[in-house]
Amino acid sequence: MIRVGVNGFGVIGRRVADAVAKQPDMKLVGIAKTRPDYKAQIAAQKGYTIFGSDDEAVKGFKTAGYSVGGTVKDLLAQVDVVVDACPEDVGKENKELYRKAGVKVIFQGGEDHEIAQVSFVAQCNYDLAKGKQFVRAVSCNTTGLSRTLHTLDQAFQIKRARVVIARRASDPDEPTKGPIDSVNLDPVTVPSHHGPDVQTVLPNIDIITMAYKIPTTHMHLHSLICTLKQNGVNEERVINALSEGPRILLVSQKQGIKATAHVMDYARELGRNRGDLYEPAIWKESIKVVDGELYFFMAVHQESIVVPENIDAIRAVLGATSKTESMAITDRSLAMLT
Amino acid sequence: MIRVGVNGFGVIGRRVADAVAKQPDMKLVGIAKTRPDYKAQIAAQKGYTIFGSDDEAVKGFKTAGYSVGGTVKDLLAQVDVVVDACPEDVGKENKELYRKAGVKVIFQGGEDHEIAQVSFVAQCNYDLAKGKQFVRAVSCNTTGLSRTLHTLDQAFQIKRARVVIARRASDPDEPTKGPIDSVNLDPVTVPSHHGPDVQTVLPNIDIITMAYKIPTTHMHLHSLICTLKQNGVNEERVINALSEGPRILLVSQKQGIKATAHVMDYARELGRNRGDLYEPAIWKESIKVVDGELYFFMAVHQESIVVPENIDAIRAVLGATSKTESMAITDRSLAMLT
Amino acid sequence: MIRVGVNGFGVIGRRVADAVAKQPDMKLVGIAKTRPDYKAQIAAQKGYTIFGSDDEAVKGFKTAGYSVGGTVKDLLAQVDVVVDACPEDVGKENKELYRKAGVKVIFQGGEDHEIAQVSFVAQCNYDLAKGKQFVRAVSCNTTGLSRTLHTLDQAFQIKRARVVIARRASDPDEPTKGPIDSVNLDPVTVPSHHGPDVQTVLPNIDIITMAYKIPTTHMHLHSLICTLKQNGVNEERVINALSEGPRILLVSQKQGIKATAHVMDYARELGRNRGDLYEPAIWKESIKVVDGELYFFMAVHQESIVVPENIDAIRAVLGATSKTESMAITDRSLAMLT
Amino acid sequence: MIRVGVNGFGVIGRRVADAVAKQPDMKLVGIAKTRPDYKAQIAAQKGYTIFGSDDEAVKGFKTAGYSVGGTVKDLLAQVDVVVDACPEDVGKENKELYRKAGVKVIFQGGEDHEIAQVSFVAQCNYDLAKGKQFVRAVSCNTTGLSRTLHTLDQAFQIKRARVVIARRASDPDEPTKGPIDSVNLDPVTVPSHHGPDVQTVLPNIDIITMAYKIPTTHMHLHSLICTLKQNGVNEERVINALSEGPRILLVSQKQGIKATAHVMDYARELGRNRGDLYEPAIWKESIKVVDGELYFFMAVHQESIVVPENIDAIRAVLGATSKTESMAITDRSLAMLT
Repeated sequence: MIRVGVNGFGVIGRRVADAVAKQPDMKLVGIAKTRPDYKAQIAAQKGYTIFGSDDEAVKGFKTAGYSVGGTVKDLLAQVDVVVDACPEDVGKENKELYRKAGVKVIFQGGEDHEIAQVSFVAQCNYDLAKGKQFVRAVSCNTTGLSRTLHTLDQAFQIKRARVVIARRASDPDEPTKGPIDSVNLDPVTVPSHHGPDVQTVLPNIDIITMAYKIPTTHMHLHSLICTLKQNGVNEERVINALSEGPRILLVSQKQGIKATAHVMDYARELGRNRGDLYEPAIWKESIKVVDGELYFFMAVHQESIVVPENIDAIRAVLGATSKTESMAITDRSLAMLT
Repeated sequence: MIRVGVNGFGVIGRRVADAVAKQPDMKLVGIAKTRPDYKAQIAAQKGYTIFGSDDEAVKGFKTAGYSVGGTVKDLLAQVDVVVDACPEDVGKENKELYRKAGVKVIFQGGEDHEIAQVSFVAQCNYDLAKGKQFVRAVSCNTTGLSRTLHTLDQAFQIKRARVVIARRASDPDEPTKGPIDSVNLDPVTVPSHHGPDVQTVLPNIDIITMAYKIPTTHMHLHSLICTLKQNGVNEERVINALSEGPRILLVSQKQGIKATAHVMDYARELGRNRGDLYEPAIWKESIKVVDGELYFFMAVHQESIVVPENIDAIRAVLGATSKTESMAITDRSLAMLT
Repeated sequence: MIRVGVNGFGVIGRRVADAVAKQPDMKLVGIAKTRPDYKAQIAAQKGYTIFGSDDEAVKGFKTAGYSVGGTVKDLLAQVDVVVDACPEDVGKENKELYRKAGVKVIFQGGEDHEIAQVSFVAQCNYDLAKGKQFVRAVSCNTTGLSRTLHTLDQAFQIKRARVVIARRASDPDEPTKGPIDSVNLDPVTVPSHHGPDVQTVLPNIDIITMAYKIPTTHMHLHSLICTLKQNGVNEERVINALSEGPRILLVSQKQGIKATAHVMDYARELGRNRGDLYEPAIWKESIKVVDGELYFFMAVHQESIVVPENIDAIRAVLGATSKTESMAITDRSLAMLT
Repeated sequence: MIRVGVNGFGVIGRRVADAVAKQPDMKLVGIAKTRPDYKAQIAAQKGYTIFGSDDEAVKGFKTAGYSVGGTVKDLLAQVDVVVDACPEDVGKENKELYRKAGVKVIFQGGEDHEIAQVSFVAQCNYDLAKGKQFVRAVSCNTTGLSRTLHTLDQAFQIKRARVVIARRASDPDEPTKGPIDSVNLDPVTVPSHHGPDVQTVLPNIDIITMAYKIPTTHMHLHSLICTLKQNGVNEERVINALSEGPRILLVSQKQGIKATAHVMDYARELGRNRGDLYEPAIWKESIKVVDGELYFFMAVHQESIVVPENIDAIRAVLGATSKTESMAITDRSLAMLT
């Protein structure tokens, strides 16, 4: 059994913790957290051992009546791998701690590429991460783009990808963030960081991205314009390639799915934890090829798409499981649609 | 086993169907629906028998590759009780059909009080519904208010209740409805229909309500101002009464719950189907008594709060189960927090 | 001519500055600001002299190519009255500066009542402010409530006012603030501060308020429930009283006004600066009297309702103009609807 | 004096009417409308003669106490040109009426290209419209794109333009439309109709567009990706070309403009009617050239950008004024920023 700890219990941490708990070959040793809020309360109800982020956090948990496993250092002493799901840039501060503890680490996409030895998406570069100490599961947008572009590149060779990303402005549990009734260019400059970030996973893809924030709380909406090298590609072949691509979901207007709200409602129907959707959703009817240029819309569930990659990364750094085997276990445990 | 059919498979119907399927004493015979959309697709995956709303619907399902149990008439021939979860005012049109089929019916709160013999909230008037043919499970707002006001009235005798309701403007699966960046008075007139609707359940409560729509998709937010007959009531006693009241949830700022978005995120953590919350959520810190007037905020999850009442109403109309027994079975099967 | 300076040029400051510039008996000496943004640019185009909030601000303006009148201290040396429209709580820090300069000051409602000698709404307590050095023009919600409750109290004697306020969560020029798809209780506790704030203007009114934030950028929506002392009051008499009350607007469903968005669109049609609405808007059809309790909906344009009070307060502190005369000049210059 | 009537008094009609009233060479004979709402009320206050859309409308206005000029037929008998600003597809129904009356007509972009002899944007094809009877002022998005692409094509020759459009989902005066917290693909298919619509004005531009609706009420946000034929173009040259292009506004992060909300607030500061912005706003810092591909963000105020084109189209159909002269008069009367 792989002994896993999860440091940070926000949007990503709690999902990864639940996914770890479902793996037949992993044991969730505990989770580390700063505050005794409702997320802690339900973690405790699930039987997760709670560790405080530091001594003060431990005190806070004890005052609130929790039994605590110690600080994050105590957690590190008991695990093979830690998943760092702390807020952006905190992972960097934690790295020395992890190094001292001698544990392997999965960082998240909020950290810079340089923090790790590999920026990871399972289907693209699993083997590169084998045996490494520091691996970075890339951000939600990068994960979605990497899965899709890798699949298309394998099938048709991508010459050039141009992507416009309408980003959800806040997560459902962060109701102080806006905008309301505005599009925020944040930053105003072009290109956005997403293109170079995809290249940390797929270095050979020519990709340029533009991004802005809109008043929604779920799903980033990507508009893709890809020039293909291969001639004679048509919509049907693209649909086939994407259908066969791992961890990608095709949705259709015919199913009544005409909005990101419908995709999320569909995900809730699936009965997964929290109504999550681990697959990027691509609209079949939006797929269009004009003179060798491929167009389509894709929606990415920002809260959950990186969960399978975190799980695979845990196996990868330990080096004992093959890519095919790991992805199969992960997919089965999470009831992936692929 | 009580044989149950569900006619209509939108926001309420699919939730009631899943809840029926979980009852130890009920069998979900099938569900009736108009279109082969993603909701139908997942119903089929769950093994639910699908019936078409009419002949055309049956044809549509067959064309889309579904196996169909027949029309809604065929469904009615096989059930003891049908839950009518059709859109507002369609229940009225269906009533003659149900009468001919000789089935018992649970209507929803979108229908008028007059459609049924009893407007039903389990804890308030279960026994009145015993053996009746037509019962109406009241709307989400009425259900939330009835549970809370009944509990408070039992404890402290309510002299007068005044309530302002900020209504969510659309459900998550209806993304064409607004407003965006506006409060809609719909209608402009005061009082709103909610007060009289509560009185269909609790005829002796003096209640007047005002209501408007705001740009949200989940939870109605109620501001309650209740004058109590009993003297000397303080916040602690109110908290105790509500804690002990059935099917009511107290939430707290201390848990980090400071917005309806937090309540919904908490509900997702609970791991119930679709992240539903069957209990109205009342903020502990908002409870305040000033000179015999009680104030507090309550949030109602419009998609799911009526699910337990539908289940209890099914048992009530058949007359064989006591209120206490039925509520206990329902609560256990739905993992209610009470 | 009254020499006026405006310190702070955000939502309120720029509106007050324009209003000052329109008064026949006032001269806008200049405005003080921190940054050379688009607001500064248009102020310069209007010919307003710009002062920097401090030396660094002056440098910033010069670098950006502005001609600058000096720092705020230089502004103070040239004025009789300064309107402090700095962000919440900055007014308090500025007070010593103003005292040293020996100028009279109009603070805004973001400051505490204690900062000034009078919390001011023209029609309620103009004379109290006469000759004072420090006066506070109260916040938008307090201004709207004070005008309306004062008018109703004069006509019918208010025994008790209960108000629920759905607050716009951010101003149109602050697009980083949320919530999106949530109601924020901020704070969760009841009553809100608005009731006591109204009592700084109308000390004899028994008022208790509840408040929350909703995802809109314009207009607070008030739901009022007022118990009247006078007997036999009916809707018609209330409509008459409010029609005759100063600086109050009655709107009607018959005009097609059924939402706060319609009120704002109506205001844009009026052709005032920035589409502002200086009057609280009360829906005629929402006015309802039941057993001596009066109900209605009122919308308050948070950006502009305090502008007339600031202008009147300037005249009041100088002591030379009567209430009636000042309000008449202000109303005429701003094309008020009353 | 050109005698002008405006049929339809919604978002576009009332703006065009006000603009007509400001032209030194035009007389607004009257406006036709269906209902006596607040827009009618303020039109009457401005002294506009109101005509009913039909006999019933006339009756409605009279009942509401308006003096009425007759029906739209009576209006047509008194004008040289009518601007049809009726809802989408109603213009088509009106065409026969206009033909019989022998008046020249300016249709709006909601109508099909085929309704008119020319789809019009002043700077692109003014002369084509000279003397024609039926001209169509194209939609807001098409107007913004045509102005910008025409300017860039003149300067650098556009090889290919790809545009993603995040559309505001509803106008500020239509608060029943959504979505709330969703992106609506409406329709799901790609490309959107905007590309072909631009080609009705600029037939030689290779343009493909993708579009979706987001929860905002003001400004469409365009992401442009243009391949240029001319070599060696850099950001500075693009900025210069756009600065010199007619009726285009460059905005900057340095002015504090980082969101569409800021653009709209800037427009309100300008002091124009209703806070309108007749120019598409392009962010300077977003302009980027990479390997001959030009990227930038542009925002289009959907309510007002077509106003100048309507005015110029009126002069064009009468044939007596040159393009340069007409645009100059229009620009001056509307205080355009160019």
